[in-house]
Amino acid sequence: MPSKEEFVVTPYEVRGRIDYARLQEQFGTQALSPELLDRLRRAAGGELHPLLTRGVYFSHRDLDRLLAGLEAGRPFFLYSGRGPSGPLHTSHLLPFDLCRWFQERFHAPMYLQITDDEKFWVRGGLSRADTYRWGMENLADLLAIGFDPARTRVFFDSRSIGVMYPLAEEVARKVNFSTVRAVFGFSASQNIGAIFYTALQSVPCFWPSWYAGREIPCLIPCGIDQDPHFRVTRDLAEGLGYPKPALVHSVMLPGLLGERVMSTSGDQKDNAIFLDDPPAEVERKVGNAFTGGRATVEEQRRLGAVPEVCSVWALWRGKFASSEAEFQEVTQGCRSGALLCGECKSRLVPRVQSFLAQHAERKAAARDRVEGLILEGSLRPDGSGPVVRGDVPLP
Amino acid sequence: MPSKEEFVVTPYEVRGRIDYARLQEQFGTQALSPELLDRLRRAAGGELHPLLTRGVYFSHRDLDRLLAGLEAGRPFFLYSGRGPSGPLHTSHLLPFDLCRWFQERFHAPMYLQITDDEKFWVRGGLSRADTYRWGMENLADLLAIGFDPARTRVFFDSRSIGVMYPLAEEVARKVNFSTVRAVFGFSASQNIGAIFYTALQSVPCFWPSWYAGREIPCLIPCGIDQDPHFRVTRDLAEGLGYPKPALVHSVMLPGLLGERVMSTSGDQKDNAIFLDDPPAEVERKVGNAFTGGRATVEEQRRLGAVPEVCSVWALWRGKFASSEAEFQEVTQGCRSGALLCGECKSRLVPRVQSFLAQHAERKAAARDRVEGLILEGSLRPDGSGPVVRGDVPLP
Repeated sequence: MPSKEEFVVTPYEVRGRIDYARLQEQFGTQALSPELLDRLRRAAGGELHPLLTRGVYFSHRDLDRLLAGLEAGRPFFLYSGRGPSGPLHTSHLLPFDLCRWFQERFHAPMYLQITDDEKFWVRGGLSRADTYRWGMENLADLLAIGFDPARTRVFFDSRSIGVMYPLAEEVARKVNFSTVRAVFGFSASQNIGAIFYTALQSVPCFWPSWYAGREIPCLIPCGIDQDPHFRVTRDLAEGLGYPKPALVHSVMLPGLLGERVMSTSGDQKDNAIFLDDPPAEVERKVGNAFTGGRATVEEQRRLGAVPEVCSVWALWRGKFASSEAEFQEVTQGCRSGALLCGECKSRLVPRVQSFLAQHAERKAAARDRVEGLILEGSLRPDGSGPVVRGDVPLP
Repeated sequence: MPSKEEFVVTPYEVRGRIDYARLQEQFGTQALSPELLDRLRRAAGGELHPLLTRGVYFSHRDLDRLLAGLEAGRPFFLYSGRGPSGPLHTSHLLPFDLCRWFQERFHAPMYLQITDDEKFWVRGGLSRADTYRWGMENLADLLAIGFDPARTRVFFDSRSIGVMYPLAEEVARKVNFSTVRAVFGFSASQNIGAIFYTALQSVPCFWPSWYAGREIPCLIPCGIDQDPHFRVTRDLAEGLGYPKPALVHSVMLPGLLGERVMSTSGDQKDNAIFLDDPPAEVERKVGNAFTGGRATVEEQRRLGAVPEVCSVWALWRGKFASSEAEFQEVTQGCRSGALLCGECKSRLVPRVQSFLAQHAERKAAARDRVEGLILEGSLRPDGSGPVVRGDVPLP
């Protein structure tokens, strides 16, 4: 166990109480400053997504450079991904909700990656069939968010490898074991699939530029824990002749059980609201959720509660406050002691239930779109690049 | 430099004077005994390929088990491969000449692997386009040997990855960096492509069993230097539910310049007869070739020469003696001093020139067959296995 001040954040392990300011310094990322957010707001036509205004996204790399390009008329594309090891919960939507907003505002192509090979390599107890099946299932969930099918394509690793491999070869030649050991904390007992994998996670960042034969900048919304993958990618970019991808990083929202991170591995199914949770389950989980409340009602009325440590507040903040006004009202009510935890939870439950019901409908409709969006193909007989099934959207 | 008694044999480095008996002991392989060869001769209808009778193939793993299966009516398939980094020379044909004989005698399916990705990863100075181009070129050479197109298919790594990847995922999960470090001598500065690659070299060994859903044994003729790859494969086989591939190993024939190994990297183009060498080049190279001859004619007449160290004898032995009688005649003439080096070379030159001329014709005709034999495809939408273009020959 790390001490109170220690924490570990890698794509394969998140533990300890994360100090985001220190993490940002450790990783060498930039704060999403009010000035930069204003600039983004202007570019986006006067509005920002709540995940940006509420500080869930707190850090970035090269967003300023991306915005400068945009202001000069250079469009970009979006990329984010999912390692499919089980059902999605609401925190998994953070990057995709933001991607959808960027796509809508900027008409940006979106590349979704499903890393079923990676999960098979790093997660014991899952077969290849399991991660494949979760990949297809998760993909239907993600498409249900409402991405524009004409502008969205999927790198589904085990399906799309023929398209991805030539570029993965180029990337893999530039990365050695020392680097993955240092960046991901791998030991010599790590399997060679997991070691190779980071090459595949770089592919979508470069692929559109490679395919189009011109520089197309990439923007990646992701959890800060995924940043190390893209540090490797960014270090390689110039050597391979592609623009460095820009990133915006979110915090790791706390789980319902009060952990600092929404870990849902193992027996921690009560730690999150899953997208397929039935209404009674939502009620039970929110009812039992860890809050920032005080020991007694009297104390809470007097001192107020602490939203920053509260898993219920994290749900309002990350997904369910329907407006900035409501979010402020809940936050102030909590902090002032006017809004007690039971009342706050009762108000949230139907909101979550109704979202999940709508999501289930959208997901059912999205299933038909899945197959058509998966990139497939193989290398041309002249070896120059892949033949890709279907039109590929490029900005 | 290793001392006289030291030698190093890995798929990525061969140096020193190889003691094959010690190497066999080091690697833990079995001798191709006269008894085993007799058994193979009977199964093959009464004849053996000269590479077997002349001791060029000297070692094996589980050939006895493969023969027992064959005697009990269980057919097998053949697999061998080529890492395409440049033009082929005559020693490169050793595994393929033997494969062709096995295919003809036993109607065995043959899987050829072209490892253009591996060569790109391990050989500096070659682009992906270079290794791809050499792969296509080498493949035409190999098909020119006369494999039966109805029974022959090609895993061309960068083209066939969609077909190979699901099985490569399974293999890669079972191999860790410690293993490849120990087996191949890799350091932490090795790139992650080369580290991953051994998973792909295992794929053809298991693929037919996996695709057919029943155990189909594999026989791999290869240079002894390639054995480490298949030691990894064999260690994994049972855990993955496939039969261990059997191997027959050849010695490394000496190069024309007198090295112990036919290395043709760098500026060593004079160290071998390439399949596209023009007639004058053949004459020049053979004329300059290192032999086992004595300092003077008188001495050679008196003491005889030493075929075992002679690069010209290696050509007779490995390829150009048209019959066992001729091979014995050349060998005895050399050893007795009756056949002088100049005469031996003059006799060999037209033999090589005529082979190369015929090869060029067969290669031109084989180019049309290349595309049709490359396995291509990608994972089925149900994730169960790949859809493969064309019929796949299974025994």
